[in-house]
Amino acid sequence: MLLLDALSPAPRTVRMYLAEKNLALPMRQVDVFAGENRRPPYLAHNPAGQTPALLLDGGTCIAESVAIMEYLEELHPDPALIGATAGQRAETRQWQRRVELNITENIHNAYHYAEGLARFRDRIPVEPAAADGLKRIARDRIAWLDGMLDGRTFLVGDRFTIADIWLYVWLDFGDSVGQPFDRALANIAPWFARVSARPSAAASLHPDCRPGGVRG
Amino acid sequence: MLLLDALSPAPRTVRMYLAEKNLALPMRQVDVFAGENRRPPYLAHNPAGQTPALLLDGGTCIAESVAIMEYLEELHPDPALIGATAGQRAETRQWQRRVELNITENIHNAYHYAEGLARFRDRIPVEPAAADGLKRIARDRIAWLDGMLDGRTFLVGDRFTIADIWLYVWLDFGDSVGQPFDRALANIAPWFARVSARPSAAASLHPDCRPGGVRG
Repeated sequence: MLLLDALSPAPRTVRMYLAEKNLALPMRQVDVFAGENRRPPYLAHNPAGQTPALLLDGGTCIAESVAIMEYLEELHPDPALIGATAGQRAETRQWQRRVELNITENIHNAYHYAEGLARFRDRIPVEPAAADGLKRIARDRIAWLDGMLDGRTFLVGDRFTIADIWLYVWLDFGDSVGQPFDRALANIAPWFARVSARPSAAASLHPDCRPGGVRG
Repeated sequence: MLLLDALSPAPRTVRMYLAEKNLALPMRQVDVFAGENRRPPYLAHNPAGQTPALLLDGGTCIAESVAIMEYLEELHPDPALIGATAGQRAETRQWQRRVELNITENIHNAYHYAEGLARFRDRIPVEPAAADGLKRIARDRIAWLDGMLDGRTFLVGDRFTIADIWLYVWLDFGDSVGQPFDRALANIAPWFARVSARPSAAASLHPDCRPGGVRG
């Protein structure tokens, strides 16, 4: 296996996952700032032009961080970061989707349409007029999530899962690109501090980057 | 188990999945038009206020259609609609995410911000100014997907999967709410016809609805 890694938030979720699992994979860096991921030969691995991607020994390439983490979880079930039972896995997937569809995709897309516009406007379809609204929706949904976190250590109760990894990496990314979350939130702020304190948070930082996975 | 079902596209993906599996679950209808899903007691099942949700015998409730289908797949692996191996499952998850993040969430959000605005503006944060741009992005990404489908029967090659179910149901929904896809596309149009011809496409229509899962 070979992980095509990059200085970007989605690859950081996989690096954080690997650190939590104490797994090491051979990696090759893809220079997303130079657009290496938007042209051949990278597009043969992932026609979506996104990082990361996991090259399997048989030649198949798996893109999409969540699909990669699910795959690695099947090969290396312990410690469980999705779940040890079908019911646990279902709860984790539910929370990961809530976080992604309500919050992190809005942060991600708003970044493409605003702070990252100069880099992305020739790579993907963008909609600058939507950026402020998507940021507002992300803030609204973070506050909504804050209420649901009351009394919980992690998103799925006492279990640290890929849902926490996903939210943490994207909120840290948001912080680094001018989309900070509200530190006055009663539950998200201490949750963020708890996750930040895990060794995997520092271990997953890209060597070339400042916090959040963005080149300084 | 009890499936909390409704006249809406996401529940239709689960109904289509069940039809493909030849599975029957006890169901209870939730009146989303009257907002039953946005107030107690439904919110105790799913604080996100969305349908469907799967009540498990132990009292746990699983929301998010993809998480529900993953759960059912673990209980009923045959016929495989995600995959029979870790590698197959990874490919399906990759394609489902590509479809959802690039296409169907744009259709879905644009609907909330435009055609569905009167119904959704008091339920969730909305951004009407983004609607046209999100529709344009969805159209662009459907055309991009069309290129990748060249030579394929289904999204994941020869295997019919939940990625096909996901795309089909949301494109059919888009059709029914004024967001039709371009019938001139060389690969998507015949793919759509192929999926439409499956018995599960008709079987998954809600009894109260016209095509697309929208009340007529």
